[in-house]
Amino acid sequence: MTDPLASWNDGAAKQAVLDFVAKVTTPNSPSFVPSGDRIAVFDNDGTLWVEQPLYVQAFFVFDRVQQLAPQHPEWQTQEPFASVLKGNLKSAMAGGESALLELVMATHAGMTTDEFATIAKDWLATAKHPTLRRPYTDLVYQPMLELLAYLQAHGFKNFIVSGGGVEFMRACTEQIYGVPPEQVIGSSNKTQYEWRDGKPVILRLPELYFFNDKAGKPAAIQHYIGRRPIAAFGNSDGDLQMLQWVTAGSGVSLGMIVRHTDGDREFAYDQAGMSSLKQALLDAEKEGWVVVDMKQDWKQVFPLKQAID
Amino acid sequence: MTDPLASWNDGAAKQAVLDFVAKVTTPNSPSFVPSGDRIAVFDNDGTLWVEQPLYVQAFFVFDRVQQLAPQHPEWQTQEPFASVLKGNLKSAMAGGESALLELVMATHAGMTTDEFATIAKDWLATAKHPTLRRPYTDLVYQPMLELLAYLQAHGFKNFIVSGGGVEFMRACTEQIYGVPPEQVIGSSNKTQYEWRDGKPVILRLPELYFFNDKAGKPAAIQHYIGRRPIAAFGNSDGDLQMLQWVTAGSGVSLGMIVRHTDGDREFAYDQAGMSSLKQALLDAEKEGWVVVDMKQDWKQVFPLKQAID
Repeated sequence: MTDPLASWNDGAAKQAVLDFVAKVTTPNSPSFVPSGDRIAVFDNDGTLWVEQPLYVQAFFVFDRVQQLAPQHPEWQTQEPFASVLKGNLKSAMAGGESALLELVMATHAGMTTDEFATIAKDWLATAKHPTLRRPYTDLVYQPMLELLAYLQAHGFKNFIVSGGGVEFMRACTEQIYGVPPEQVIGSSNKTQYEWRDGKPVILRLPELYFFNDKAGKPAAIQHYIGRRPIAAFGNSDGDLQMLQWVTAGSGVSLGMIVRHTDGDREFAYDQAGMSSLKQALLDAEKEGWVVVDMKQDWKQVFPLKQAID
Repeated sequence: MTDPLASWNDGAAKQAVLDFVAKVTTPNSPSFVPSGDRIAVFDNDGTLWVEQPLYVQAFFVFDRVQQLAPQHPEWQTQEPFASVLKGNLKSAMAGGESALLELVMATHAGMTTDEFATIAKDWLATAKHPTLRRPYTDLVYQPMLELLAYLQAHGFKNFIVSGGGVEFMRACTEQIYGVPPEQVIGSSNKTQYEWRDGKPVILRLPELYFFNDKAGKPAAIQHYIGRRPIAAFGNSDGDLQMLQWVTAGSGVSLGMIVRHTDGDREFAYDQAGMSSLKQALLDAEKEGWVVVDMKQDWKQVFPLKQAID
């Protein structure tokens, strides 16, 4: 029999997954969970694919700014656009979340949902990571792909629950993870149904509708899924509340945190004490969440390059 | 072979369903749709179950007002509560949507999502329809149950897209329709994640988050499902935009409107020209939507009573 988790080294993390799946799928066991209730939720950036040196969607935003600049001469002097156009991303990001939101709204609205899907798909088909030099859609974690497939083969329904834009993610999640659009939960713009040239369209408005992060994640899980998942996978304090909610259920559950410890094969950036993962690592010990050390636990990080490369 | 649509009389409506399913499931046919893209959306009230003399959820609201009245002495004199407590539902509903919203918020908030699910389930297990004298969960349309099962057996994923409260519907939709919670889209309250007695909870706040009706329905379909369904079933102008959106897709699609024409077995209330169905019936002709006449097209309306009754 082939190992369904072949890219995982033998160790506590791999064993925890195998034990958990065995428990909830063994009929007549006290921890058995019927197939319909086997819901697993996954953060996306840094949990399923690369998020360094910046979120993939941030690179998409910057490329969109370059592309739209001829229609916006005012961006040449107006921040954060001016810095993006000069290629100074650090300065562009100096304004923090509000600057990023301004960039997102300027580049993710004003078109129909169908038009946006095409724009996002076209970009994902050609854009490459600045240092790893591969398409972003290749920079998914091979061990997590195996985990998604393993859970699905055992009657789980996998959902992505990410701070990323829901329509941006949906442009590739089915292709790269096998997760269909209706199982992707993310941040979103307001939209409006209207008629154009005798056809109904849904227009993306330049206004935030829902920001899916931190305490928003468990609320979104209840709102979109309507039942408590039994497994949650994350990599930062943005996933803390989701992990709390999922593992506070009455039955057996699995909480898992991926730690980015491998500067050679990926990026090393989540040392204990780092602000974006401080609380989740403290809680992991208390709550029995499984901590995955990418360097130790993963035989391989990214899928092998296609022979054609 | 048993007829999968046994409660449908032979006629144009039944034939349209059979033809549509044959078209989209025949491999190598130009109208073939892969299983993952076979999404069907159903309105709930008046399309899948009874909505007369009032929405089922309105009866739930009235019973909740009675139950909570001892904690709210002010309701004895304050409208619309006072009318509800006197059993004068017509007067209670005189305030229209804003009165109903006030009643909903007073009775659907202030508890956790888990607590609300229990309250709704308990009520649905015991409450009976005022004139038909059966539990509401029995007052689902047998032909529509067959339709849901028939589509599912042919690789469709069925979603409910209703103006009703999403958490109220989820208390029974899996049991009565076989539609799991994550395939139910409805109106919703705002919620808040917080800690109570050392456990995380999601609290229901007395504020509307999203009202899923009319132009809200196609926007919600895009937001929650993320792809365009190929079949839509409704019964009023509240479903008009959903039908437009679904049948404006580029491939084969099915739009269907259920007309309440049978005063003997159910309720007759949607004569052409009636305001709640005027536009949808006009459009049906133009767009080729199938109109179901309950009296003509349905051999049976409700499931047979259990032998134990």
